[in-house]
Amino acid sequence: MNEKTIKNFDTRKINRDKSGKSSEAVAVEKSYDLLLDGMRVTSLMASPSELRELGYGYLSTEGIVKSESQILSVRVMENEIYAFVEGAENIRNSLELRSSGCVGVNLDKKGKKEQASVESDLSIPSQTIFQALKELRSNVYAQTSGSHSAVLLDREGTVLAETVDVGRHNTYDKVVGKALMKDIDLSKTMLLSTGRQSAGMVMKAARSGIPIVVTKAARLSSGIKAAQRTGITLICFPDEEKMEIFSHSERIKFSSSSKREKTKNSGKRNE
Amino acid sequence: MNEKTIKNFDTRKINRDKSGKSSEAVAVEKSYDLLLDGMRVTSLMASPSELRELGYGYLSTEGIVKSESQILSVRVMENEIYAFVEGAENIRNSLELRSSGCVGVNLDKKGKKEQASVESDLSIPSQTIFQALKELRSNVYAQTSGSHSAVLLDREGTVLAETVDVGRHNTYDKVVGKALMKDIDLSKTMLLSTGRQSAGMVMKAARSGIPIVVTKAARLSSGIKAAQRTGITLICFPDEEKMEIFSHSERIKFSSSSKREKTKNSGKRNE
Repeated sequence: MNEKTIKNFDTRKINRDKSGKSSEAVAVEKSYDLLLDGMRVTSLMASPSELRELGYGYLSTEGIVKSESQILSVRVMENEIYAFVEGAENIRNSLELRSSGCVGVNLDKKGKKEQASVESDLSIPSQTIFQALKELRSNVYAQTSGSHSAVLLDREGTVLAETVDVGRHNTYDKVVGKALMKDIDLSKTMLLSTGRQSAGMVMKAARSGIPIVVTKAARLSSGIKAAQRTGITLICFPDEEKMEIFSHSERIKFSSSSKREKTKNSGKRNE
Repeated sequence: MNEKTIKNFDTRKINRDKSGKSSEAVAVEKSYDLLLDGMRVTSLMASPSELRELGYGYLSTEGIVKSESQILSVRVMENEIYAFVEGAENIRNSLELRSSGCVGVNLDKKGKKEQASVESDLSIPSQTIFQALKELRSNVYAQTSGSHSAVLLDREGTVLAETVDVGRHNTYDKVVGKALMKDIDLSKTMLLSTGRQSAGMVMKAARSGIPIVVTKAARLSSGIKAAQRTGITLICFPDEEKMEIFSHSERIKFSSSSKREKTKNSGKRNE
């Protein structure tokens, strides 16, 4: 029996004019170890459904078996997929894992107690975040539809560093690399991304000490849990009109655009 | 000096009423090895730009260094990024690579001459592919915006197997797994996907013997090259009105929808 592939998470929801509580449906992502003839071959982050099919297909799509008849059995027990095959090929290759920017991505190991924890008293008005979203435009994406962007901003919304890559994880590496090379204090920045926020993505921000992560794409259950645990404020924009804050919302100060407009119109400064 | 991040590829372009040649901008994806104090830590698939920043940031985002001052140097030579650090931590962890369905993905190793090659005389009318796209709808995506889908169809466009997962690579494993468990001949199928077609994705199809891959998302340079090399017909839909065929277009027979409509209206059968 498979677990649920969707779970609800509590959020604070802010649009341009109001702030309130909500609950949002999130895709569940879990970690599964694949064992081949008793040897751990890989860990897969996947939806908790059709895990036997996942193991069965992996043996074929990664070239470990050439024919279905070589597969003796595939069994799933909790978080482990046990495969037994005859004449396995290509196992050595299976230990080399690559794809578009999605490799080199450690989860935090709860068992091993990795203690990444972000401490920062950074606080940003919601309007600044709404306005910052426009910085995620990319010329490469406009031409190819095949790239991701990441932008690092300060509390006033000024761009400190930005980058583009085919891999969402690479954009975090590149933009953090740029910041380090320029001696920017990452604890005073927020990170905007076009990529889904899985645990691997959120942990990259956590290890670098970035307190606020904003995505235009979806969040996954593993990413929300990692953000809650490490002290990151995780914000998602299902559209450009509202933000959903899944963790540590205390860093975001609600500021209404209409109030701002009024203040501006009456000639007063907006403090 | 970095290479180009965008390259043009020749295509055959088919919309509902006509077929012709075109050239399309594609995001370039290349493989880079990261060596830490002389030891290969990982391979990254990335855009060929800002590679020094990529290496610099990776050291921080993966927790290999705690502070920028530990980084002695990062140099890029061709396809290798050489990093030298003081007091590296967490290297063991760096060898365990995970993220949403993006792991467990071998490229074909040109050097090692992996001989995946698809042979199939499958041929499909373009209208069948236009109509098949509707099968990619997913209830999980509708609720969470955080999932991928894959659907396997026969030459008449009948659905043979389908699946949903947070990882685009997992959807290929699951749908191939289902097909194998049902004894479906994969050489007579086409695979529809919501995921970008990098080399890792295309090679999964190639190893399983699937001759036609169709994506609603972008294609990457590495995916096109893998498709050309292994004999896969790679089709991309920049919107639902036109398809771009990047390799082995001989399997797609152009069939005009307007002609079909006329034929239907005049009471004749469409052969």
